[in-house]
Amino acid sequence: MTSNLTVQDVGEQGLLKVIQRFCPSELIGDDAALLTPDPHQSLVVTTDMLVDGVHFSDRTTSPQDIGWRGVAANLSDLAAMGASGLGITVALGVTGDTPVSWVEQLYQGMVGCLQSFDIPIIGGDICRAPLRSLSITALGQVQPQFAIRRSVAHPEYDIIATGFHGDSRGGLELLLHPELGNSLSEAEKLSLIQAHQRPQPRLDLIPILQKLWTKTPEIAIAGMDSSDGLADAILQICRASQVGANIIQQQIPISSALHNLVSPKQALNWALYGGEDFELVLCVPSQLTQQLLQQFNHAFVFGQTTTEQSVVLVDANDLQFQQSLSLEQGFQHF
Amino acid sequence: MTSNLTVQDVGEQGLLKVIQRFCPSELIGDDAALLTPDPHQSLVVTTDMLVDGVHFSDRTTSPQDIGWRGVAANLSDLAAMGASGLGITVALGVTGDTPVSWVEQLYQGMVGCLQSFDIPIIGGDICRAPLRSLSITALGQVQPQFAIRRSVAHPEYDIIATGFHGDSRGGLELLLHPELGNSLSEAEKLSLIQAHQRPQPRLDLIPILQKLWTKTPEIAIAGMDSSDGLADAILQICRASQVGANIIQQQIPISSALHNLVSPKQALNWALYGGEDFELVLCVPSQLTQQLLQQFNHAFVFGQTTTEQSVVLVDANDLQFQQSLSLEQGFQHF
Repeated sequence: MTSNLTVQDVGEQGLLKVIQRFCPSELIGDDAALLTPDPHQSLVVTTDMLVDGVHFSDRTTSPQDIGWRGVAANLSDLAAMGASGLGITVALGVTGDTPVSWVEQLYQGMVGCLQSFDIPIIGGDICRAPLRSLSITALGQVQPQFAIRRSVAHPEYDIIATGFHGDSRGGLELLLHPELGNSLSEAEKLSLIQAHQRPQPRLDLIPILQKLWTKTPEIAIAGMDSSDGLADAILQICRASQVGANIIQQQIPISSALHNLVSPKQALNWALYGGEDFELVLCVPSQLTQQLLQQFNHAFVFGQTTTEQSVVLVDANDLQFQQSLSLEQGFQHF
Repeated sequence: MTSNLTVQDVGEQGLLKVIQRFCPSELIGDDAALLTPDPHQSLVVTTDMLVDGVHFSDRTTSPQDIGWRGVAANLSDLAAMGASGLGITVALGVTGDTPVSWVEQLYQGMVGCLQSFDIPIIGGDICRAPLRSLSITALGQVQPQFAIRRSVAHPEYDIIATGFHGDSRGGLELLLHPELGNSLSEAEKLSLIQAHQRPQPRLDLIPILQKLWTKTPEIAIAGMDSSDGLADAILQICRASQVGANIIQQQIPISSALHNLVSPKQALNWALYGGEDFELVLCVPSQLTQQLLQQFNHAFVFGQTTTEQSVVLVDANDLQFQQSLSLEQGFQHF
């Protein structure tokens, strides 16, 4: 019906009607949305901005993928705090010639990522602008004693990642150069491309983690997400907690698909610095490690925190090998 | 120190350091901000987006005013729900050639509007973009029984505005054509320009209103803010509540400064349709009216809701005069 219409054809009221179909009807119609968090929960708030030509390009990214990834990045920040999601708000800037169907598909992508966690779009703003942009603010809640923080790691904690790293970067490369995938199975290609286009925020881990944590509420769990790269996450946690880390090169979780796509050195580099994997990097006391690995299939231990101040990559097969990781090599959005 | 530096000179980390000076230090350093609302309060969430060339222009608006007005618009939406403020998040897009001092002044303007209400900046995102833009999400809280809603007005409620209308539009005109102000005193000029550049969100009314409301918690108070114009606010409330209204032309609160600036007809037109006054328009049962007027100096009664479905402007001196108000004449952002 709306396939040929643009934003300037339907105007603000018309576009609002399109967008409101993606929001729960009881939240529409007042100056602001009302939400009721559970009692005694802290509120968790995070914001991310995506701009056409900087974070996405209309020519290479579908509106569904832009919406999905924008939401995934925000939900990943909630997961990184140990929170469950309450809702998101969306501020959308669109050019007048933007097809209404583009806006619909953007919202379809956002709702696609939100719906498995039962999180609603609770409000937002739209405006016509010379450039498309999308700012999402996600709200979540967490019992204060079960908040994951960067600054609470102790030495001799296990360092755990909740999934493979480097796949998002590999998927991007495969999209840019499909011929690189000639030696990959269709399933491998799909898994890399999905990792890039439809990353899964690790909110699914949170109830599992809290159930384990409730048994020993006195322990601290440190962590953050790996949206800016695995190396960045380890370094940020170590800096905030004033600990060091030994990372065992062979234990860094890298998928067989990525190993089949590129050389071991390239795979390691993307795993550490590729970014946008949206997994969690956790530092947990060893008493919790085995239970966590048993309850969550995709968790991998790949290092330990130390009393040193440096983060060192070591080789399980070559005790002479040591390489310091630094933030400067990390992935920079800016 | 930073007066000649641009955003691309200092990079993301440098700009973050500049911005973090405007945020409480305990909220910095994790993936998301943690806040603790009071127990048994509903959360209120609202988002607004401002784009260079659409909502402001670098040539005519100072960064302080952009920041102030962006915050005021969001806080006004919180006030319109009867909420107090908990915090705001800021997503800022800036071009690489933006002076760091511009960003600092933008934050000074935001903090200037926030500080009288003791509301912190709790988080945000910055990114380099081909265009400057600012998305603010404001969080507030309200006891659910004291939430102001659009849809709960009854017939024979008094219609109250919390301040003068049309001044913001008058101030804009005065900025564009200073010669129009020749017959105005300096104080009058300043009050109109301030109304445009530094609007005051009506959060100051909320504790007063709640104190009165607590004595008769069974009554409903309807309302919204007049950011899109006084006529728009009345029409939206009446539509949502399925009531009509009689508005008495002579009682619409118009400042003497605006009367001295333009003709009575122009002043009335700007009061009804000018927009951006960021006052509250409330519909309250008459038992509350006198107390509210006594406790809040700037409140004015200017009409009553009716059982009809139409909103009619009437003339206290000419009983033959009747004019229907409609949304089509209203101020449109889009």
